Amino acid sequence: MKKSVVFTVALAFLLSTQMVQAAEYKVVHKNGIVLAMFGTTVEPALQGLLNIRDKMKKAYPETPVRFAFTSNIIRKIWQKRAADPAYIKAHPNIPPEILHVQGPLATIANFQDDGYDTLVVQPTHIAPAEEFLDLTAYVDALASIDTIKKKFKPFNKLVIGRPMLGTFGVEHPYAEDIKTAVRAMREDVDRARKNGAALVYMGHGNDHFPSGGSYLQFEHEMNKVYPDVKTVIGTVEGYPAVEQVLETLKRSGVKKVVIRAFMIVAGDHATNDMAGPEKDSWKSIFEKEGIEVLPYLHGMGENDRVADIFVRHAADAAADAGIVLK
Amino acid sequence: MKKSVVFTVALAFLLSTQMVQAAEYKVVHKNGIVLAMFGTTVEPALQGLLNIRDKMKKAYPETPVRFAFTSNIIRKIWQKRAADPAYIKAHPNIPPEILHVQGPLATIANFQDDGYDTLVVQPTHIAPAEEFLDLTAYVDALASIDTIKKKFKPFNKLVIGRPMLGTFGVEHPYAEDIKTAVRAMREDVDRARKNGAALVYMGHGNDHFPSGGSYLQFEHEMNKVYPDVKTVIGTVEGYPAVEQVLETLKRSGVKKVVIRAFMIVAGDHATNDMAGPEKDSWKSIFEKEGIEVLPYLHGMGENDRVADIFVRHAADAAADAGIVLK
Amino acid sequence: MKKSVVFTVALAFLLSTQMVQAAEYKVVHKNGIVLAMFGTTVEPALQGLLNIRDKMKKAYPETPVRFAFTSNIIRKIWQKRAADPAYIKAHPNIPPEILHVQGPLATIANFQDDGYDTLVVQPTHIAPAEEFLDLTAYVDALASIDTIKKKFKPFNKLVIGRPMLGTFGVEHPYAEDIKTAVRAMREDVDRARKNGAALVYMGHGNDHFPSGGSYLQFEHEMNKVYPDVKTVIGTVEGYPAVEQVLETLKRSGVKKVVIRAFMIVAGDHATNDMAGPEKDSWKSIFEKEGIEVLPYLHGMGENDRVADIFVRHAADAAADAGIVLK
Amino acid sequence: MKKSVVFTVALAFLLSTQMVQAAEYKVVHKNGIVLAMFGTTVEPALQGLLNIRDKMKKAYPETPVRFAFTSNIIRKIWQKRAADPAYIKAHPNIPPEILHVQGPLATIANFQDDGYDTLVVQPTHIAPAEEFLDLTAYVDALASIDTIKKKFKPFNKLVIGRPMLGTFGVEHPYAEDIKTAVRAMREDVDRARKNGAALVYMGHGNDHFPSGGSYLQFEHEMNKVYPDVKTVIGTVEGYPAVEQVLETLKRSGVKKVVIRAFMIVAGDHATNDMAGPEKDSWKSIFEKEGIEVLPYLHGMGENDRVADIFVRHAADAAADAGIVLK
Repeated sequence: MKKSVVFTVALAFLLSTQMVQAAEYKVVHKNGIVLAMFGTTVEPALQGLLNIRDKMKKAYPETPVRFAFTSNIIRKIWQKRAADPAYIKAHPNIPPEILHVQGPLATIANFQDDGYDTLVVQPTHIAPAEEFLDLTAYVDALASIDTIKKKFKPFNKLVIGRPMLGTFGVEHPYAEDIKTAVRAMREDVDRARKNGAALVYMGHGNDHFPSGGSYLQFEHEMNKVYPDVKTVIGTVEGYPAVEQVLETLKRSGVKKVVIRAFMIVAGDHATNDMAGPEKDSWKSIFEKEGIEVLPYLHGMGENDRVADIFVRHAADAAADAGIVLK
Repeated sequence: MKKSVVFTVALAFLLSTQMVQAAEYKVVHKNGIVLAMFGTTVEPALQGLLNIRDKMKKAYPETPVRFAFTSNIIRKIWQKRAADPAYIKAHPNIPPEILHVQGPLATIANFQDDGYDTLVVQPTHIAPAEEFLDLTAYVDALASIDTIKKKFKPFNKLVIGRPMLGTFGVEHPYAEDIKTAVRAMREDVDRARKNGAALVYMGHGNDHFPSGGSYLQFEHEMNKVYPDVKTVIGTVEGYPAVEQVLETLKRSGVKKVVIRAFMIVAGDHATNDMAGPEKDSWKSIFEKEGIEVLPYLHGMGENDRVADIFVRHAADAAADAGIVLK
Repeated sequence: MKKSVVFTVALAFLLSTQMVQAAEYKVVHKNGIVLAMFGTTVEPALQGLLNIRDKMKKAYPETPVRFAFTSNIIRKIWQKRAADPAYIKAHPNIPPEILHVQGPLATIANFQDDGYDTLVVQPTHIAPAEEFLDLTAYVDALASIDTIKKKFKPFNKLVIGRPMLGTFGVEHPYAEDIKTAVRAMREDVDRARKNGAALVYMGHGNDHFPSGGSYLQFEHEMNKVYPDVKTVIGTVEGYPAVEQVLETLKRSGVKKVVIRAFMIVAGDHATNDMAGPEKDSWKSIFEKEGIEVLPYLHGMGENDRVADIFVRHAADAAADAGIVLK
Repeated sequence: MKKSVVFTVALAFLLSTQMVQAAEYKVVHKNGIVLAMFGTTVEPALQGLLNIRDKMKKAYPETPVRFAFTSNIIRKIWQKRAADPAYIKAHPNIPPEILHVQGPLATIANFQDDGYDTLVVQPTHIAPAEEFLDLTAYVDALASIDTIKKKFKPFNKLVIGRPMLGTFGVEHPYAEDIKTAVRAMREDVDRARKNGAALVYMGHGNDHFPSGGSYLQFEHEMNKVYPDVKTVIGTVEGYPAVEQVLETLKRSGVKKVVIRAFMIVAGDHATNDMAGPEKDSWKSIFEKEGIEVLPYLHGMGENDRVADIFVRHAADAAADAGIVLK
């Protein structure tokens, strides 16, 4: 007798259970956009990111947009803040999507887990360098996941848009992207002109990737399109360095510059490396040479024309893949 | 005057901000285990999964273990339940890791986002068939993500363990895994012997992958090791089908069988396809032929020796990759 | 004066040189078929391979077909023979495409180098096991080579056909392939029937991959379709082993068998392991048990219906990829 | 009786055949080097390639070195020449490895087929741009081919060396590579100095990849290291263009230039685009502006210090992969 108890113990309960197997799995494709960026911990600098997000939402009101921060350090700081009631009380306006921001892998994966299998990842990178290549590696790997039955592929389509200054390939020639970016900079040229100043941009740059060409070609085009205002670009961490910028300024007899970070957000680099009071900030270096410095502490993302560029690059990536964003 | 306001508006605030860039990013590797399975919506059947999880935790108490359900339909049902206060009230014992379970992609990605970059994904699959190959595709793709600087690779190591009946390759010959599985089935043989019955297993099987060989080789070994109790295995959805099982039973003059799902959980297949009252359940089919049927409604995961197999397979995968689980 | 000589030395000659850069690179897609197989060193056994090749050429007279042997050892022997004038003199009928046969990588790559960028690789494998998976790894890797400009991709399309007994996936259910193979075996059934014998097939098998299911499902279907002639299948190197075959023969009271290699060529395995005089050949093992053995030493490739299967599988792979073979 | 004939017809012959299966497959790793380049049809320009090859052979006398030309058009021309007895008679000194040169895929694959499974592919590219990325895609794909048994992997190790001006990553910072390249250019600086001339380099460049940064950073370093000789670099097909070069020359008051192709071979670009008599050659453009032009028609490969750079880059790639070249 005992055995029949053993054999049937779970049975009564189970028979009332939902018949899962009966339902056939039907795939419904849903679009989403991931805005991927290095990230920032500087609260006012968030404005540059939120502006791009808002433009994207306005262009595609039916498509959810989520943020991803690629910097491990920056995400950790936000995680601490999110767990700190004092911080949250002191900063009531930080949106939850920033407070709980994740890296690109988790952002994409959670989007997918929520049923969005058709995604455009739009980086807010300026140049196609290390960060863009790394993010592309994520996207390519995830998009490559194949399954024996096609309907179980995690992603219907998963594509990446190109940086502001374009990328490799023939479909969207990077030289055109540079010209578009140049047109978007008119407000900075006006600002410099009004001040009788040259315009200096501080890009990020790096030691590990020869991305300087994008910057210098951009500088070259700026001077062709706006010949009456001298534009010079340098980078914090790579080539061309600030010494080269200074040399050009001196050779051109520049006495006053408007200086702005050529980065999406005016974060730590802008406030400190560019416009900070330390001796080795660009401001200090230029002032020491008798050049007046007018810092403009707003990230590129706050320039609506720049934000529009990222919207268009997401649109291009979607269109190239046959994704209809709405 | 106005411009200097524009230029400096954000400055005062920013200078008090945390100096993020100063901190060098240091990688600390942390281990985690993902238990990946099709999943079930049948509450008592969860016991099979929880048992494997508990064995894993006991073996490696310092390593967090997370669940992933690969079935989209099953996850959706859990999502509905998690959002249904009535369900939660009625089922207070459902652990939150089941209630909020995600697919393998999101589970792995969130693990990574939480700082665990060294992961062993251990499927609870029985045979190396469609589900295992698909999961392997996920793991391989994620593990392949490379970055320009090695320290930014999302995963230090990401590996997958093999199913109960083993997989391809020479390092862990599948024939040995089958023998180990055979030894773990002693409790079922004892149960059948005590009842003077043959032992029938119902595997899953499928139409799209010739996995029947693993099952039949397992059956062959069972009959060699336990010659006094006839063991026959069939599958719900593939080869060998129930007709072949019945034929063997009849040819062998079997009059009574203990029947058990050769699946990790005794879910829908066990309760309905195997032991249900419908005319086409295995129970009905056998009974119609005059064979007495004693269903044993417990998933393989509830067999401690089976649970141990998955612990060892995770350990092997870790050891092969040089991961020291603790 | 000397320097101008240095500067212009090469000039006169160069100016008459073909203007290479002027010509725009235009892509012309050309189709080719690679027949990939383990290979054999047994000359008469080549007939099985050549027959498949001839059927393929007849079906697609405008498409060149090339051989590839995957076995490193076998290729080395052919390399030695190709360099041995005595061997060549003694074997004037060995076709040069066998004498100089290469592995799948070099065969595919040289095809591509000769301008054929749209290739179907058709293995002559019986079951989807180790060799097929390895070959698939080659094809997938080569097909994945991407270039910045699409026109420079080495392969327009590069696909692999499925083995005789089918493979994973839903497009071409393997169970149908098994049924097709069963129909193609009629000549062997007739041969056995005429001799009042059972039919025994010796497959290859292996220890590292649970491919036995394909064989056993094939055996099962054979006995359903041809119930008057008992068919039993075993493998040389894996499961099911000869002992199991013998057991089945004895249980069924079989006294005479027609035995044939379930391999594309009747090479070393057929001549020695199956029909050789050694004590452990299948012939000896069966004869020792009083079973009369009639070996049929022809590879499956010599069966026109089998050859046709490979032609159709190549056609399916081409059609799935939108390749129009002519 | 007839049937036994059928059954045994092939047997007698076969038994004398080499016992292939008996021999266990033993892997012996053998090293090889592939020198990959765009290629040229200009015979005297081959000297640049042959020089690099000779340096490589001298450094690693036990390691075979093979050429690969990536240009489809150029390979086709060599194929025609190889089939043209008149051409061969007129050019008796063209080495067969040029006459029968293949693309990188076939070169690597044939190397592998000949038993060389450990290969270093060393491009002779100047900058890490389109051609280098495409070649890297080939190498990565081939190196990724995995097999169920490790001993059957086609490549033990297959790696790619970096271009003259370096590439992405931290192991070999590209800025150091640029400095090394600058040191190797001393002979050109001397040549210009002796002539009281500036030094102009014509790089290749392209419209599809922002590689200009490598060139400009190189130019920048040249002018720092050799401040007494003005160095200016431009490209034929990309940024910076000849107009920018001319502008710099004029701004610097240059009246005479030594001009040299910043390419491995002095092929069509050097002879025509750079030094040809057409109105739009750099020579013509500069001369029209009153600048005397001294073309130096030797590819960079003819500079022994440049050739040595490629030898070292191959050595680095080998060392990074644990390959011991001899």
